[in-house]
Amino acid sequence: MNKMGLFSLRLCTGTLVRWAGLYPYSIRACTGMTKLQIDEEVAKLLELKAQLGGDDGKHAFVLKTAKGTRDYNPKQMAIREKVFNTIISCFKRHGAETIDTPVFELKETLTGKYGEDSKLIYDLKDQGGELLSLRYDLTVPFARYLAMNKITNIKRYHIAKVYRRDNPAMTRGRYREFYQCDFDIAGQYDPMIPDAECLKIVHEILSELELGDFRIKVNDRRILDGMFAVCGVPDDKFRTICSTVDKLDKVPWEDVKNEMVNEKGLAPEAADQIGEYVSMQGGMDLAEKLLQDLKLSQSKQACAGLTDMKQLFSYLQLFRVTDKVVFDLSLARGLDYYTGVIYEAVLTQSSPTPAPPAQQNGAVGEEGVSVGSVAGGGRYDGLVGMFDPKGRKVPCVGVSIGIERVFSIMEQKAEASAERVRTTETQVMVASAQKNLLEERLKLTAELWDAEIKAEVMYKKNPKLLSQLQHCEDTGIPLVAILGEQELKDGVVKLRTVATREEVDVSRAELVEEIKKRTL
Amino acid sequence: MNKMGLFSLRLCTGTLVRWAGLYPYSIRACTGMTKLQIDEEVAKLLELKAQLGGDDGKHAFVLKTAKGTRDYNPKQMAIREKVFNTIISCFKRHGAETIDTPVFELKETLTGKYGEDSKLIYDLKDQGGELLSLRYDLTVPFARYLAMNKITNIKRYHIAKVYRRDNPAMTRGRYREFYQCDFDIAGQYDPMIPDAECLKIVHEILSELELGDFRIKVNDRRILDGMFAVCGVPDDKFRTICSTVDKLDKVPWEDVKNEMVNEKGLAPEAADQIGEYVSMQGGMDLAEKLLQDLKLSQSKQACAGLTDMKQLFSYLQLFRVTDKVVFDLSLARGLDYYTGVIYEAVLTQSSPTPAPPAQQNGAVGEEGVSVGSVAGGGRYDGLVGMFDPKGRKVPCVGVSIGIERVFSIMEQKAEASAERVRTTETQVMVASAQKNLLEERLKLTAELWDAEIKAEVMYKKNPKLLSQLQHCEDTGIPLVAILGEQELKDGVVKLRTVATREEVDVSRAELVEEIKKRTL
Repeated sequence: MNKMGLFSLRLCTGTLVRWAGLYPYSIRACTGMTKLQIDEEVAKLLELKAQLGGDDGKHAFVLKTAKGTRDYNPKQMAIREKVFNTIISCFKRHGAETIDTPVFELKETLTGKYGEDSKLIYDLKDQGGELLSLRYDLTVPFARYLAMNKITNIKRYHIAKVYRRDNPAMTRGRYREFYQCDFDIAGQYDPMIPDAECLKIVHEILSELELGDFRIKVNDRRILDGMFAVCGVPDDKFRTICSTVDKLDKVPWEDVKNEMVNEKGLAPEAADQIGEYVSMQGGMDLAEKLLQDLKLSQSKQACAGLTDMKQLFSYLQLFRVTDKVVFDLSLARGLDYYTGVIYEAVLTQSSPTPAPPAQQNGAVGEEGVSVGSVAGGGRYDGLVGMFDPKGRKVPCVGVSIGIERVFSIMEQKAEASAERVRTTETQVMVASAQKNLLEERLKLTAELWDAEIKAEVMYKKNPKLLSQLQHCEDTGIPLVAILGEQELKDGVVKLRTVATREEVDVSRAELVEEIKKRTL
Repeated sequence: MNKMGLFSLRLCTGTLVRWAGLYPYSIRACTGMTKLQIDEEVAKLLELKAQLGGDDGKHAFVLKTAKGTRDYNPKQMAIREKVFNTIISCFKRHGAETIDTPVFELKETLTGKYGEDSKLIYDLKDQGGELLSLRYDLTVPFARYLAMNKITNIKRYHIAKVYRRDNPAMTRGRYREFYQCDFDIAGQYDPMIPDAECLKIVHEILSELELGDFRIKVNDRRILDGMFAVCGVPDDKFRTICSTVDKLDKVPWEDVKNEMVNEKGLAPEAADQIGEYVSMQGGMDLAEKLLQDLKLSQSKQACAGLTDMKQLFSYLQLFRVTDKVVFDLSLARGLDYYTGVIYEAVLTQSSPTPAPPAQQNGAVGEEGVSVGSVAGGGRYDGLVGMFDPKGRKVPCVGVSIGIERVFSIMEQKAEASAERVRTTETQVMVASAQKNLLEERLKLTAELWDAEIKAEVMYKKNPKLLSQLQHCEDTGIPLVAILGEQELKDGVVKLRTVATREEVDVSRAELVEEIKKRTL
């Protein structure tokens, strides 16, 4: 064995030992795991096995999807389609157009937009030509699109997959390939009107998806910055202190204060002052109160943010959504590019998801995503300017629906429900109890297709009636059109309702209308 | 300047010279170019400029999409949505489910599936972990999905983007990122029934898309192989001679014969015999005639193919699609994995596309795609077995709609038509002629949204009525709900029809019903 061989063997053994330490497999350890979690573990082990290779040194072929990705089976697709339809209907109701951008961008288009997270960007191999990367979100391609086409006004949605080389946690809905579902309004308008529409949209979508009760937290970057200023945070620490505040929905105040003071070197008094502000929640009244606050009102920025917050709430009242919206000074949101209002929607009921251990303690949840967060967004007036050669700004405000989490919840709801998820829309099965009627079945099926009826027929010369009916039961087809010698002679079809087993003779001429009537 | 610098400068200059030779820009040279072609040239030049860098040595930032890719603007998206809806409706009418797979696969999943074309696969950079490649088509991921999940029966469609590092020709609809739109039936069934359904689907889709007249050519790999055998082609030359035959829709017989004899070393008599067969076209009658053919009937394979061809035509008669289907012995199709029936649909009318020069000569068209080809497919009974550890086969037959070409044609039709393509579905604009009515406009708009009316409102405190009406004209919004002091007092809204400028007062209580009635 040469040195290389030895080296790789040692590497692999090292991996194995590490894994064995992390995963002491016993039935006892496995109890309490969900099926999904077990699948995930199995996938990890198979991957490990593939890395180790076979005993005979022959490379074992692994039948799997790439780490952190998944196929969608027909049932998941049916749920996905339903969720998309609800969301897209809402976007269209608000007069939005849609665009699409390529899955990869020039590497330099993404450079300098994601800070530390840039290490999570997937690069394509240099095969000659341009250096390319898979898109990391839909916002940067949107900004690139606006600048490239010199568009200054658009209301658009974009639903597409994005890619992050993150540590996957598939049981918690964190994938390396996942959907984003963005709605944005670009353009110079009177303050807070498009911002209010974004919140109205979140309200509509979450209500229509029936995910349970929710709350939309709202804040403003200018209020946060003003608050930091009057509390004595040095200018150059605004962003890093803001990141710490962002953790408040996951860790208790003591830990946040500790990080501010001990890790980030903030004076304890400054931290305490921040602590007072970030415990405040309310509505328009809170904005009014804070405009009178002796300390906070000294900040011009904060006053501008608070005045806009009042304006926002007045529009939200007209939109009748204030029942769910709360002005929450602890909301910070991680992304650097926000410049004004920010918001985040959280589910307030515990979801049917089995909560991971950390979540049960009411503390740490998903990294970077608060427990139950299903939508988020805000105003970013500077991003498009980063792409414009002359730095011309296009003000933008937008919202992103946390669609993967919505899928997870909907899948679990479907799993728990007695109702079967149909994966086809077939209205009628063309069947026969007798032999040698394949031609007649095919002819009738084609007639139905041509009349825009969704119809299926078995690809067998002489299938059993029972197996034809069983297929209907299995896939939820509501009707069966049964052909026999007698029916053909009489010019009729026996139309059977699968649920009730009722059968009636319907004339061929009236069959299409009858099927349409029964499957409205 | 160091050696590296000199070297790259010389490289760039070389590129420039080559380009200058190819593209002698003058107004004269540009006449006859379409806008799209010009855009493409501009993009190429900008790319070149970026490679050259700025005069000051500073890297110029290029605002563009990756080579061979494009954004879809709202108008293109509206057309794309319409095309997809037509196609998906057809797939659903035939009882198909849908699945989705990740955009990248393990590199080894794609290895050994595409022969020489493997060099066109996009690889991801090795950033640690698995080696990944972007999917090249949807068929291999489908086969991987079936084998991985041990699925032996499914009727599924899959519409998604695939990636090929090919030489892009964007004016002719050849991109590096493009959609595939596949429908496949997997399972062991009685012969030719699912195969016939695939052809019925092509017939339905092409008819419904109204692309003009079309023809579906059908052949069978077994008939081709039998023909090669009886004409004296050595066994090991079947595939390569088949590839040459595949060019018959693009180059005249003389050139094909020349390639067979001079490049591939076939005996001229063998080539001449092939030449006789591949000139034959017909229907069921031709299949019957060839079953009696003294030479061809000596091949068991050919007889099996011809018997199935007869069967196929009998089903196609029941499906009433024989008007467009022709049994054509010259149809070969490039892909290795076909094992039975193969087909390809071509448009027979010249499309509104300005034909590229080569096409005008009636000879060479798109590399690998025959002129006007809009769908293709066939039976591939061996592919899934390549993924199964025990080699278990799952017979499959499928069809792929050439959706990018369909998009191009639809876009050109839209361009030529007087009718405007709407990019939103907004039914009504909530407007006002008077000042200080923003709140009332927002309130009414929210009422309409809540009643599921698609409504827009301007994000301005006091927009001019003219600009509100202009927006309706520009975007095709058919109705305007106008609010004024008097209307508010009377509890009515002035409902204006944009096209006719007619205005009627409608009571607030009846507004939703009235809008629904007028925008059915």
